[in-house]
Amino acid sequence: MQIITINREFGSGGREIGKRLADSLGFAYYDRYILEELSKKLALDENYLERTLETNWTQFMPFGQTLTTNKFSTQNSLLLAEQHKLVKQLASQGNCVVVGSNADLILEEFNPLRIFVYADMQSKIARCRARETESEKLSDHELEQKIKSIDKGRSTKHDMVTSVYPWGDKRGYDLCINTSNTVIKDIIPSMKQFAVSWFKERNHGN
Amino acid sequence: MQIITINREFGSGGREIGKRLADSLGFAYYDRYILEELSKKLALDENYLERTLETNWTQFMPFGQTLTTNKFSTQNSLLLAEQHKLVKQLASQGNCVVVGSNADLILEEFNPLRIFVYADMQSKIARCRARETESEKLSDHELEQKIKSIDKGRSTKHDMVTSVYPWGDKRGYDLCINTSNTVIKDIIPSMKQFAVSWFKERNHGN
Repeated sequence: MQIITINREFGSGGREIGKRLADSLGFAYYDRYILEELSKKLALDENYLERTLETNWTQFMPFGQTLTTNKFSTQNSLLLAEQHKLVKQLASQGNCVVVGSNADLILEEFNPLRIFVYADMQSKIARCRARETESEKLSDHELEQKIKSIDKGRSTKHDMVTSVYPWGDKRGYDLCINTSNTVIKDIIPSMKQFAVSWFKERNHGN
Repeated sequence: MQIITINREFGSGGREIGKRLADSLGFAYYDRYILEELSKKLALDENYLERTLETNWTQFMPFGQTLTTNKFSTQNSLLLAEQHKLVKQLASQGNCVVVGSNADLILEEFNPLRIFVYADMQSKIARCRARETESEKLSDHELEQKIKSIDKGRSTKHDMVTSVYPWGDKRGYDLCINTSNTVIKDIIPSMKQFAVSWFKERNHGN
């Protein structure tokens, strides 16, 4: 089984990398699909789910409460557990690229190629503006705050699942790509080639 | 001018990546050559120079002394200055790959492709054992201490020159590669392809 997991900073183009890489390799691709499926299964609104799973949970907690004692977190832990189950199910169906959902941790047993995508703030702001009409309403400062807040949520959610390396720490990934000075479609062929040789060696090593 | 700079953890295979990448791109390659030239120019022993430039300098400083007040550091600052001058001279001669020597910082004006190479400790120990006969005399623990000490020296020397991102912080690099599960010669074609598309976009952007 060849699985590529992608963690990414908001606005760095990680999802575009994931989709294009999956297409070029002929792999299945999962990101929002996971939310859609969860939403159906749990009969919860997809936007609510997305907000909940991407939120910086700790900000809602009264002072002195921890993630394990907080009532709010119990509900979220259940959501997380369902998400984990679904990600494992999808991954066991065949070669795929999974963006987000802590797939790097959840799918550890499959020995995935773990990629982290990042960029400098200026580049992330520009990318957000290019793709989202709602960004137009935000000032650069507000957009920066939004980006930081979403990344904080991803980081918190990631670090709840593991205590080995924090979210974004290069030691937890096989390849970290800074997209600040790149056009994503142009770097896909090299990433595909990297993935192919990486899996070849992994299989040889196993 | 197309310049690739490589910073690397000791034992991660960064030098092999640099050499092979330079060969595959038809670029000049500099690492030890810089030491050799410095050694000739300053009439100092090459091994002494290497030890000095790779050492964790702070460990020699009496308590309370800082890098700027210490006499020992004055001599080293002069060495560093000579090293910087030489690296700039070499780089201005044409496309090249430079391993070490803080080239990512010294050559910033050339907008180089900045690569960081790393690996997990087990893999670095194995790589050291495979290439160096003197490693045979060291226990795993001793070898680990040696690796950490050399990296500490690189980190100190790097962070003296910049206050933007610490040595090894992915934000200071365009690409970070974990060599733990790779055979270096097999990933060179993908790195070459990445470099070519990265420089194409950089030139387009300029």
